[in-house]
Amino acid sequence: MTVVVGLLHPGSMGAAFGAQLRLRGHTVLWCPDGRSDATRRRAQDAGLRAAGLPEIVARSEVMLSLCPPAASEQIAADVAELRTGSEAVYVEANAVAPFRVQRIADSLGPTPVVDAAVVGSPPVGGKSPMLYLAAAAGHTDRIVELFAGTDVRTHIVGDRLGAASALKLAYSSYQKVSRVLAAVAYGAADAYGVGDELLAIAAERTGSYLVETDYIPKTAARAWRWGPEIEDTAALLAAAGLPDALMHAAAETLARWDSCKDASLDVTEALEALRAERDDPS
Amino acid sequence: MTVVVGLLHPGSMGAAFGAQLRLRGHTVLWCPDGRSDATRRRAQDAGLRAAGLPEIVARSEVMLSLCPPAASEQIAADVAELRTGSEAVYVEANAVAPFRVQRIADSLGPTPVVDAAVVGSPPVGGKSPMLYLAAAAGHTDRIVELFAGTDVRTHIVGDRLGAASALKLAYSSYQKVSRVLAAVAYGAADAYGVGDELLAIAAERTGSYLVETDYIPKTAARAWRWGPEIEDTAALLAAAGLPDALMHAAAETLARWDSCKDASLDVTEALEALRAERDDPS
Repeated sequence: MTVVVGLLHPGSMGAAFGAQLRLRGHTVLWCPDGRSDATRRRAQDAGLRAAGLPEIVARSEVMLSLCPPAASEQIAADVAELRTGSEAVYVEANAVAPFRVQRIADSLGPTPVVDAAVVGSPPVGGKSPMLYLAAAAGHTDRIVELFAGTDVRTHIVGDRLGAASALKLAYSSYQKVSRVLAAVAYGAADAYGVGDELLAIAAERTGSYLVETDYIPKTAARAWRWGPEIEDTAALLAAAGLPDALMHAAAETLARWDSCKDASLDVTEALEALRAERDDPS
Repeated sequence: MTVVVGLLHPGSMGAAFGAQLRLRGHTVLWCPDGRSDATRRRAQDAGLRAAGLPEIVARSEVMLSLCPPAASEQIAADVAELRTGSEAVYVEANAVAPFRVQRIADSLGPTPVVDAAVVGSPPVGGKSPMLYLAAAAGHTDRIVELFAGTDVRTHIVGDRLGAASALKLAYSSYQKVSRVLAAVAYGAADAYGVGDELLAIAAERTGSYLVETDYIPKTAARAWRWGPEIEDTAALLAAAGLPDALMHAAAETLARWDSCKDASLDVTEALEALRAERDDPS
């Protein structure tokens, strides 16, 4: 049984999710209003069908919100304005704090909301990310069924709205802030001429992000996107009574890379951008 | 050729270094004044010889400072007061910022200072930590010779005072703050009932600290010691023009565990101590 899915708004992850749904014969609608040429090409390549937001909201049986985290509430608000009271499920799949998922659910009124989160790379070239799901069982089951037979694996983590998002943020707080730490540590060693020795130490520990200096420019290029996600993680930690200082500090550190949005830098350029003032460290 | 080494003040790392030197026939003096019974036993087991600080300073050809980082400057000051102008080398082997190494060198006047740092576990049971060294070549060569044939490996990183300490702090900023992050991330997931799912994600990445929850209570027990080291790393980063916010935040986070000094906790107790107020995270 194929269904109509509204995809809001396809970036690289969303387009790949859309392509997987297309392979199973589902119809995937997306809204090109105000989107870049790159996004249009990506949607076209993925076999998605362009439509206005009113049509998407009216026709979709499942709405899937997969966007930069900072846009998630606005997208839900846009949908809420147009909502006609169908039985569509709204899947909030972005890396946002549980309180925001709750606010989105509240804003959508009677529309059932599934809290979801993606861990892993976009499902292209055999990669198979995990889509974590949390909501009442009937609703999560519909999403499990939707992705059955695709490269998107699904995993229900219970019926508590926010649990999937909390899992995502908890994991990415470690993963992303470790990346920030790795950049800072390498910069410090490099400033004293002992960058190679640092990497030699790190290499003795398998899997250490420290050895992956090629990732430093990627962290810089993604800083604009990671910052809001990490600030949301701070909110999550505060709500759990846990210290949020590391997350605020990571966001503050990432903000130094604001001007590097999606840039192609080398390691030296990325570290240069990280330094506010290039003082002599001696 | 055996020499007289003054060890200030042997904790578990220092005692193990002393035992290695004893195995090569060197005389190792230590000062029991005001030290705990555990320290005395450890020094005795390692074959170290008790002596007053004036005797240690007068007789030692090499003085090795290996202590909690916060004590390093006081120890140097104590030695400086007693200094008789011999040709002894002072090895500052603690995890302190380069500016502090320089201050110690300045306070010791004509005494040659070798900047050093230990990476790895104490040299017992076949473990062989690396002692990084930075100073004028003649002085570092003496220390390389001193540890020749022991389980303490040596590695000269140049002649710039502070380079060895910078290497140590850069590495431990990553390693220790990642440990703090791992504890915080696990606590966040646990608060939403998805701790096991977090560990399952982390297990797919080899070497991730996230999987090692047994280490969370160890981090809590060591917080009193890691805090000052990480604050010094903040100073190092600031001097290099790099953002120090993550280090201050890590020290602030560790301070929540101040009351857990050397305690034997389980994971639940350690997380409980990390939470300032146990709010309901829903």
